Amino acid sequence: MSDIEPLDLRFSEKELDAQRAHIETFIEGQLADADAERAVIGLSGGVDSTTTAYLAVEALGAENVHGLVLPGEVSDADNMSDAERVAESLGIEYDVLEINPIVDELLDAVPEVEGDRLAVGNARARTRAVLLYLVANHEGALVIGTGNRTEAAIGYFTKYGDGAVDCHPLGTLYKQQVRQLAADLGAATELVEKTPTAGLWAGQTDEEEIGMDYDTLDAIIALTIDGGVPPGATAEIAETTVENVEHVRELHAASEHKRHVPPAPDALF
Amino acid sequence: MSDIEPLDLRFSEKELDAQRAHIETFIEGQLADADAERAVIGLSGGVDSTTTAYLAVEALGAENVHGLVLPGEVSDADNMSDAERVAESLGIEYDVLEINPIVDELLDAVPEVEGDRLAVGNARARTRAVLLYLVANHEGALVIGTGNRTEAAIGYFTKYGDGAVDCHPLGTLYKQQVRQLAADLGAATELVEKTPTAGLWAGQTDEEEIGMDYDTLDAIIALTIDGGVPPGATAEIAETTVENVEHVRELHAASEHKRHVPPAPDALF
Repeated sequence: MSDIEPLDLRFSEKELDAQRAHIETFIEGQLADADAERAVIGLSGGVDSTTTAYLAVEALGAENVHGLVLPGEVSDADNMSDAERVAESLGIEYDVLEINPIVDELLDAVPEVEGDRLAVGNARARTRAVLLYLVANHEGALVIGTGNRTEAAIGYFTKYGDGAVDCHPLGTLYKQQVRQLAADLGAATELVEKTPTAGLWAGQTDEEEIGMDYDTLDAIIALTIDGGVPPGATAEIAETTVENVEHVRELHAASEHKRHVPPAPDALF
Repeated sequence: MSDIEPLDLRFSEKELDAQRAHIETFIEGQLADADAERAVIGLSGGVDSTTTAYLAVEALGAENVHGLVLPGEVSDADNMSDAERVAESLGIEYDVLEINPIVDELLDAVPEVEGDRLAVGNARARTRAVLLYLVANHEGALVIGTGNRTEAAIGYFTKYGDGAVDCHPLGTLYKQQVRQLAADLGAATELVEKTPTAGLWAGQTDEEEIGMDYDTLDAIIALTIDGGVPPGATAEIAETTVENVEHVRELHAASEHKRHVPPAPDALF
């Protein structure tokens, strides 16, 4: 495996084994705490949900994992087949539920949002969450999230959409570490290396929307957001511009509210 | 005003004025922090959403508050007229959006949940959240929550449903304090004294579902959950059974996950 530029955050083999066991123990613990036996996971065919599903199956057994494939208008056929292929290869129960009829009813109710790409894209993500919880509540299952540390740090998720889950097994892993773990778990190379997309609208790619590649983003977050390295030094080490570093710092600050429960006023008495 | 039994938690006149100003400053501050000028509020015709709307109008002006009335199959016509009457009397923009066509599509997608009252009821609450955010995202507005301290303490709200908001102006107020504030703000007496219902299914009342009246619940929460008074002493002071106190303590413990962001594994390295 070649080095990752500019900052290689991947685990050693021993660390990776420990991480994998640690996350599986976490998943088991989350279900035990909630007195739940099953997990529901939204499968997109991307590396995050694929990795999460692999870990959940190792932790809980294939018979206790229920995958939901939730294609919408903007999902290309290939992605969805990838999600189904993951479910098939893991031997888990899965359903394919189209979100378009639901989203269409939302747009009928609020026609003025038509053409507002971001608002409608977020509504798609939230519709997926409603479906995941509808199935999970019915089965007494937990909804297992698929978000990683990189996305969380810059708020690259829909509040109450893909962020609406019961736990985040990958929440401490940078994107490149998720890819490493996916490969280690035996995910197909084309899934591990696939161009990431949040699937909010047609042709979207994460890296284009964020304005830089994930390896650079990982490096900036590890150095300046999580590590406290000053922006100038971060730009040098991460081999990027100070503007990119500042952009990431702004995304982090602006998304602070997404990483906390909604605030109430301070106690007056 | 007669005393509230068993424990009167209402504010003095001076405290109430301070509380009112404090919450209005909070609402203004939340919008300023988010660089937003408008607020979107789901109006049910109940005392919580009515009080929240009154406070938002005082804080932001009627022209910056957008009410959404979101009736469903289980809402009786009276309740909805109450919500519309509140909007009319405040002079705010409001829309009435039926959630049934959307919920029907959800049930078409997951037909096996039909008859699962709780799962479907939660899906109704979550559908309302998706609509509130669809409008709010389009307008660059915040979704102002209507939850109070009593409900929060026992988790009497739908995770990612009515809990899916940007802030909780009433979050530090016990139910009886919300009623007091509502009366002080000029809400109609029949709204202040109306039997509370989460509206998840027909004929539901909060007090029947929780198993005790709100005044007893307020007392138990103030004493043993928030105040640390032992269960036995709480039962005596609150003039209720130890079983009721234990029931509230169990509801509180079981809903801990609803008051936190979804956990990730502890950092391993």
